[in-house]
Amino acid sequence: MGSVIGVIGGGQLARMMIAPAVELGIELRVLTEGPESSAALAATAVGDYRDADAVRAFADEVDVITFDHEHVPQAVLARLVADGIPVRPGPAALAVAQDKIVMRERLTALGVPVPSWAVVRDATELGTFLAAHGGVAIVKTPRGGYDGKGVRVVRAAGEADDWLSEGPLLAEELVDFRRELAQLLARRPSGQTAPWVLVETVQRDGVCAEVVAPAPGADRFVAEARAIATTIADELDVTGVLAVELFETTDGRLLVNELAMRPHNTGHWSIDGAVTSQFEQHLRAVLDLPLGDPSPMAAWSVMVNVLGGPEGASLPDRYPAAFAAQPAVKFHSYGKGSRPGRKVGHVTATGSDLEDVLARARAAAAFFAS
Amino acid sequence: MGSVIGVIGGGQLARMMIAPAVELGIELRVLTEGPESSAALAATAVGDYRDADAVRAFADEVDVITFDHEHVPQAVLARLVADGIPVRPGPAALAVAQDKIVMRERLTALGVPVPSWAVVRDATELGTFLAAHGGVAIVKTPRGGYDGKGVRVVRAAGEADDWLSEGPLLAEELVDFRRELAQLLARRPSGQTAPWVLVETVQRDGVCAEVVAPAPGADRFVAEARAIATTIADELDVTGVLAVELFETTDGRLLVNELAMRPHNTGHWSIDGAVTSQFEQHLRAVLDLPLGDPSPMAAWSVMVNVLGGPEGASLPDRYPAAFAAQPAVKFHSYGKGSRPGRKVGHVTATGSDLEDVLARARAAAAFFAS
Repeated sequence: MGSVIGVIGGGQLARMMIAPAVELGIELRVLTEGPESSAALAATAVGDYRDADAVRAFADEVDVITFDHEHVPQAVLARLVADGIPVRPGPAALAVAQDKIVMRERLTALGVPVPSWAVVRDATELGTFLAAHGGVAIVKTPRGGYDGKGVRVVRAAGEADDWLSEGPLLAEELVDFRRELAQLLARRPSGQTAPWVLVETVQRDGVCAEVVAPAPGADRFVAEARAIATTIADELDVTGVLAVELFETTDGRLLVNELAMRPHNTGHWSIDGAVTSQFEQHLRAVLDLPLGDPSPMAAWSVMVNVLGGPEGASLPDRYPAAFAAQPAVKFHSYGKGSRPGRKVGHVTATGSDLEDVLARARAAAAFFAS
Repeated sequence: MGSVIGVIGGGQLARMMIAPAVELGIELRVLTEGPESSAALAATAVGDYRDADAVRAFADEVDVITFDHEHVPQAVLARLVADGIPVRPGPAALAVAQDKIVMRERLTALGVPVPSWAVVRDATELGTFLAAHGGVAIVKTPRGGYDGKGVRVVRAAGEADDWLSEGPLLAEELVDFRRELAQLLARRPSGQTAPWVLVETVQRDGVCAEVVAPAPGADRFVAEARAIATTIADELDVTGVLAVELFETTDGRLLVNELAMRPHNTGHWSIDGAVTSQFEQHLRAVLDLPLGDPSPMAAWSVMVNVLGGPEGASLPDRYPAAFAAQPAVKFHSYGKGSRPGRKVGHVTATGSDLEDVLARARAAAAFFAS
């Protein structure tokens, strides 16, 4: 196989593949939505990922197709596969990440621990689920949700009527959790897997805000989290990076919350904190090259997301003050215009003292917050 | 000042600036010699760096000019300065790196320790120098030398006649040295400097082959090397990365061998082994942003150059075997076609045990050697 990787989608995940691609001498091409995308630097084609002809034409320029996001329709993917183009992860695996109901069905069939769940088709079914779960449920649209979108806490049967009019929903128990964790790994088509350390993630308003690697005091969960992620990757034939978001329940169990089959926000720390970053590893995996060592470089790494502050501001405007105050923090800009709440970059600190690392990462991110 | 950096020259040094530029969201433009250059990915203009009009037109697209190499003529630089374009390092500093005679004169005037030297204009003067230095001398052409080119060991007055017919030469004592060291630092226009650790460099056939960071057993030289580099940077008003190549003499002195005013082969280890790499630091410095922490990430880093093996082979052809054998080594390709002796990439290993780190780096590089 050749070594030109085509990425569908030009967001920050595609952008963060550019650095390791340049370093390794791997050619990266990106199908972007427009010239203002994060990965416009590597964009070689502009087109709609829902347009089968545009995607098929893009595939002619590359040796393997991978993704910045999970939204490419199955019909578009099927045409690539029919024409013999390697698609990694493949359509069958992606289907599980694309639809939360399919995901719950498959994980349950695999014996992977998940929250109590049901498919609800109307208010009556939602009412039944509520009655069986203490009068409260999380309701999710099967498709299109991310960063807290398409997710709602419901306490009465009629509170999801608007969404139910569009189709069935996933209802889940409101999990009583102590904290959220994430287990990432990469898997090659030939089967090799390489897990990063289990991390703790802190969400705010449904968006990943902070990641601590490794998760403090989580030794008892390490083996189980790794086993869960490896089972999912192997059984679903995932290729590339798999992210498994987990709840640590107050009664000491792990439950799978969400899956992603691409580099993931909870793995950004690995750029500066691991021997092999999730972006380099994803490139290796989709080319079926031997995976790199995912070991941490430091005792602790902390990543803090930078959410857009004032409209029109850019990260580099704040560099003079931020760099002066935090010379050891690594700054990452996604090349996007700022807007309140938008992920425009992240910072990572590493070191041997967790309190110090946390303080430095948070202080660095704070320079961009307002 | 804006934040678009223009790099004159499209070699591997410009190429290795791409990754940190993308990560920081700093726009990089490159004036390359042709579409096959290492940094062609970031090339926005093709032109000859000796062509004042081409360079001047390129400068209109950027906010500050820096360099992949030191060969841009002073007349071309003078025009940029006359038009108010920031040039970093500036022409006066670059003049010292461009001409080895000027370099020896300036360093001697600054009181920096250098080998015994003289300008020789003919065979008689060379004979006089030989007689005063045990019958042997190193003779160097003032300009255009690199990687061992333009350097010759001479033991008779007539052995440099070919070069003397072109102009004066620099004659130096053949230094009896124990090993070679290098001190790199970065300096901002506003004066801040940040030194990396002193490193040991191993040359083969006049080309840097291997770098060990920090230099083992060199504690007694750390303060002096840093003082020498800081003096040179401050007194010559260097901006960006300065590399000072040093001899550790058998009688325990440091002597300055060569200077470079740009990221340097002896600093490539910093990409994977330091909190702030020389390429990121160069970008910060030329934009006059606060410098990053140059501390090492690991106890030991070893960089080994990959010199071209068989004609037509490329590094990625060897990745399957090399990655499988050395999962923790970082591989860097310069995107060049291979040819015997040509620098086509490098590898870096890091860790806590020097023997292990050395062995892994050498083993990884060996996959590409033949």
